Amino acid sequence: MTLKEKILEASRELFNTEGVKKVTVRDICNQLKISPGSFSYHFPDKDKKEKIVTSLYKMMLGEIMELVAAIPRDDASVIYFLESHKQLFIVQKKYKFFYLNLFDILNSHAEIKAIYLQNIQMERQMAKQLLELYVQKGVLKAGIEARQFERLVNVGQMLNNSWAIDAELHPQRTGKEQFIYYMNICCGLLEPYLTEPSLAEYQAYFEALEAQPMNY
Amino acid sequence: MTLKEKILEASRELFNTEGVKKVTVRDICNQLKISPGSFSYHFPDKDKKEKIVTSLYKMMLGEIMELVAAIPRDDASVIYFLESHKQLFIVQKKYKFFYLNLFDILNSHAEIKAIYLQNIQMERQMAKQLLELYVQKGVLKAGIEARQFERLVNVGQMLNNSWAIDAELHPQRTGKEQFIYYMNICCGLLEPYLTEPSLAEYQAYFEALEAQPMNY
Repeated sequence: MTLKEKILEASRELFNTEGVKKVTVRDICNQLKISPGSFSYHFPDKDKKEKIVTSLYKMMLGEIMELVAAIPRDDASVIYFLESHKQLFIVQKKYKFFYLNLFDILNSHAEIKAIYLQNIQMERQMAKQLLELYVQKGVLKAGIEARQFERLVNVGQMLNNSWAIDAELHPQRTGKEQFIYYMNICCGLLEPYLTEPSLAEYQAYFEALEAQPMNY
Repeated sequence: MTLKEKILEASRELFNTEGVKKVTVRDICNQLKISPGSFSYHFPDKDKKEKIVTSLYKMMLGEIMELVAAIPRDDASVIYFLESHKQLFIVQKKYKFFYLNLFDILNSHAEIKAIYLQNIQMERQMAKQLLELYVQKGVLKAGIEARQFERLVNVGQMLNNSWAIDAELHPQRTGKEQFIYYMNICCGLLEPYLTEPSLAEYQAYFEALEAQPMNY
């Protein structure tokens, strides 16, 4: 790991535990036992913290895309949808500081806001296409109205962006229990629309999750 | 309106537009053209802003409870559910600063956090009872599993707590359009579970909303 990577990693962990606002460049240096000079060599700009937050945001998006792209795309099964959410949840938790203060971070980082708004448009398009395909392939019931699709996609996105705050407010759920709870909350939106065979796949997936050991 | 009420009102509006963190006691005094002395007479404590935020939170809960209590409770109709959400949305928008920085506000105001956590438990209980009654009365389809209820109630609460941020990130939707959009997002959760007559009531309610003039 290069020093630049170590700085980003330490910043991410400090942001997650202390919140972006409280963490100073000095805190990050102390954590890594490096001098402010070494730090500035890697982040020479004036707005060092802003640059780090923006780099971390881009890293997060990159990780999500990479992990989701690696899932075998089987359009005739709900498993792709579930596996995508699983990867999304794992990465979102890793960068949870971003979601805990979404509104403030977007409003104080113009570059992140621009990418974020573009990204949620793209996600929405992709989600809509997947759901339409799922109707064609018999994963979802036929006859779901266009406005229902629209609502499902938008609700799903709102839940993806807000589950991290809900998780912090309910510290009694931790680890795998927390993970399965929010997978259920978000993916469960599809449940009433699944056809019988897909519902069976869906339930088997969650039973397998329950049975697996998992670090989360 | 007493001066104390005016201070709370001006604070609420400044918090909504500028964010709680940016607003100082001086800003509130300037807005009302009053002296720091008059201000301190009404808020003598050291943590003036904290006291104001806490007072506003209690006012908001009081307004929600009062408005919801005034809705005729008809357990054989989905209208009570829709009207309750309508009032909730109106009050939440009025105090939107609270939801835009929910995580920070709860973590920096111990009294608010305690009330908030108690309140969401109570809301959850009430929502679960209402849904169970709705099954008995034929508003909702029979045979919905307990874990589905649980999920509906929890998802509904997450959406209620996070729609304000989503609204800020999508400034193209304003006024009545914004209101109906989020009513749809949150109340639409029930749609797949409504019986035929209730679905007709539900749709008629939204058609009436569309047709009504509304300041929002």
